[in-house]
This record gives sequence, C-alpha cells and structure tokens, in this order.
Amino acid sequence: MHLFYQPGIVSGESVQRLTEDDSRHAVKTLRLHVGDAIAVTDGHGNRYSAVIDLADARRCAFRITDTQTTPPRPFSIRICVAPTKNLDRIEWFIEKAVEVGIERISFFFGQHSERRVLKLDRLEKIAVAAMKQSLQSFLPTLDDALPFGEMLKTIVEQQRFIAHLPANEPPINLAKRATVTGEYTVLIGPEGDFAEKEIQQAIAAGFQMVTLGPNRLRTETAALTACQLLNFINV
Amino acid sequence: MHLFYQPGIVSGESVQRLTEDDSRHAVKTLRLHVGDAIAVTDGHGNRYSAVIDLADARRCAFRITDTQTTPPRPFSIRICVAPTKNLDRIEWFIEKAVEVGIERISFFFGQHSERRVLKLDRLEKIAVAAMKQSLQSFLPTLDDALPFGEMLKTIVEQQRFIAHLPANEPPINLAKRATVTGEYTVLIGPEGDFAEKEIQQAIAAGFQMVTLGPNRLRTETAALTACQLLNFINV
Repeated sequence: MHLFYQPGIVSGESVQRLTEDDSRHAVKTLRLHVGDAIAVTDGHGNRYSAVIDLADARRCAFRITDTQTTPPRPFSIRICVAPTKNLDRIEWFIEKAVEVGIERISFFFGQHSERRVLKLDRLEKIAVAAMKQSLQSFLPTLDDALPFGEMLKTIVEQQRFIAHLPANEPPINLAKRATVTGEYTVLIGPEGDFAEKEIQQAIAAGFQMVTLGPNRLRTETAALTACQLLNFINV
Repeated sequence: MHLFYQPGIVSGESVQRLTEDDSRHAVKTLRLHVGDAIAVTDGHGNRYSAVIDLADARRCAFRITDTQTTPPRPFSIRICVAPTKNLDRIEWFIEKAVEVGIERISFFFGQHSERRVLKLDRLEKIAVAAMKQSLQSFLPTLDDALPFGEMLKTIVEQQRFIAHLPANEPPINLAKRATVTGEYTVLIGPEGDFAEKEIQQAIAAGFQMVTLGPNRLRTETAALTACQLLNFINV
C-alpha cells in the first residue's frame, strides 16, 4: 500500500490535489485511475482514505472519504547532530531515524566540524520518503544548521544529553539516564568530536554526559543509536 | 588512534607482519616509522600493543609489547537476513551492526527474495573496516547465503525470533520477548516479506513472532533495529 503526502490539505474542501511529484508517481508509476482508493497524510498526524477523482499526472485530484487522526507520541526525540563530512552518512541517518521514529532533527556546525554547508531541501525529500515508506502520519521537523552556541539556545526539551564520556567518572548509558515519556534532546558531535568549550557550554545549559554503548561509533551511528535507545525505553 | 587487523598472529613469534593492505595504510597513509607504537587485533578478542620494526609498505613488521584479551560478551546476537535488492542497503547494515555490536550475520534467499546472488568478499572487508573503526577486538562471523530452509538448519541459538506480525494475536516487541544474557537469533525477511511456508517452517523450528516497533521498516532497518534492541536489553 502506497502513502501519499500532501501537507496542504484543507479539511472540508471537497476536492484535494496531490503534489506534482505524487501526481506523477500515482498516475505514471502506479498507474492509478479515477475511482482508485489511495491513502494520503498531511504529515501532521492526519491520514486520509481517499478516492481519485482526476488521474492527472501533474495535478491528480482526490476526494477524502475518511480521516484517521493519530495523536503525537507520549514522548519526543530531538537529535542535534553535526553534519558529517560525507553527506551520504547524514542522509542515511535521516532516513533511518524517520523510519524508527523521531520528532525533530537539528543540525549544528561545531568548532571541529569539517562540513560547513548543508542544504536542507534534499534532506527534507529523504525525510518525506522515509515517512511514506514507514507509513507514518507525522513528518519530523528538520532545522537548518546553526553554530553550536546558537543551536543550544533553541533547546526547549527537559531531558538534555550530550554523547560524550566524562573525564573523571564512570560513563552512564543514555538508556539509564533518560526516563520514560520525556521530551529528549541528545547532542551528537562531529567526526572531530566536541571542543572542550562546547562541552562546557552544554553542561552549563543543563546537558548530562552519556555513553551510547561500549564501542566508538561514527557520528551518524551515534545519532541513530541515541534515537533507538530513546524509542526502546518507551517500548 | 588506528587499529590494525591481523588474523594470523602467532603468539610467541617475535616478529609479526601486517597484511599488505594494512602495511600500505600504515606506511603510505599514516606515514608510520620504525619505533612507532601501533595497536593490532586478531579479531578473536586479542588486542596487541606493538612497535613497528620494519616500515615496509608491503610487509610492515611489528613486535608485540603487550596483549589485552577481551572476553566474549555475556550474550550473542545473530541476525539472519535476506540480502536487499539494492546491495548498498545490506552493506550499510553490516557496517552499522558491527559498529554497535553483533556476533554473527547469516544471509538467506527467501521465496520472495529479489536478489539471488551475494558476494561475501566485499561484505567481509566492510565488517573488518567497521571493527577497526569502532575499536573492537572481535570480528563477527559472516555466513554465505543459503536457501531459507538450509539456513534454518544452521541455527544453534536458544532464543529464536522472527520479525513478523502474528495474524490473530497482539504483536509483542522483541525487547519484551527476549531475556537478558541469551544467545539470540532473529530472522529478517526480504523486501517481499516471508512466504507463509517459511513462517510455518520457522515456527516449527521454535521461532517466536515479534515486532520491532510500530512502523513499517525496510529490511536493513529492521535488521539493525533487532540488533540494537538486543544490545539494549543487555545494557
């Protein structure tokens, strides 16, 4: 079953239209016709059962027959990560994090970041594709990259963690530090790791140091593992 | 710090040699010289502190100064997965599973598998690179692909799970079904999912149906999530 994405659905409107991309996919690839049933999400928790009214490859029209609204999860995961030098790795993280469940991804440039440019358009396409693929009704928020200090000011979540080993105390796993049904933020450093100054800034902002396991993980692996750990404690 | 891999270390030998690949990397890329300290693992739990005796780009020689032996983990994870149509996805799974910790990966061709050929050489290189990258001393076992029924006969683990939703009962998450410090096997189906016959074979072989979370996951995402869930319950 294929799920379409139309963020601009106006409830009450008798006729809705798929985006141009989805119209092409519906008519050219899936060869759907007038009267065929489809499912559409607005990415805000609504999933619509619908019927195609006009099989136009550029502006496919559909009629909503039923609406199912999914409530947000009783917890929320926000991962703040420095883009990797090799962009494939961060793209992969986005696809997988969206598949397993995440609310928000924020990017930052750290003092040791090798990558200083990040285009969000392509990353958002990947997030949309992963939301459809995994049949979800919420599209996670992707935040443009900010300098580390600026990004820190945008943190609103209560439970704050930074993936970094403490110098003088035994490391504690994120799964032990975090408590269930919370609003979580985890900071994941760049390949060159956090600068000491950045760690001090995070601690001053109420972040707790955590480990994600016994092994040294790549940036994107650490980011996904943090997301998975927080999903798991809420299973 | 860079970790080298030499499976053929003979304890007691005064002079050891890096593989040709690692010799080139040590001498050409890292520009190491005679007297430089290196770390080498045999992939069987031994990690050696060593000193370079001969900086030869094809047969770099080293002398072991210290040996640390890591015991195997008190649990073991074996994921049996059908290779994905797009090989990148299974390569990605191997890299990530090795990073987070896995003992064995077995491949199988299911009735609905789109891919019918799998070359292990390249996959083993990826596993070795991920072991070095994550600074581990154990190289997981990779098993050549077998037909589903043949692969089932090779299962020795006590705790057996198949990622498939039961028809008539509520799904139970792998994290709830599995118990700590066990020997686990999880079966992950191809993009086309398991055939009904395969599910019946697995159940007859003592496999329990489990879910890996609320979302529909791609094959490689499901395989990694199973691995991470089992690591997680043993944190």
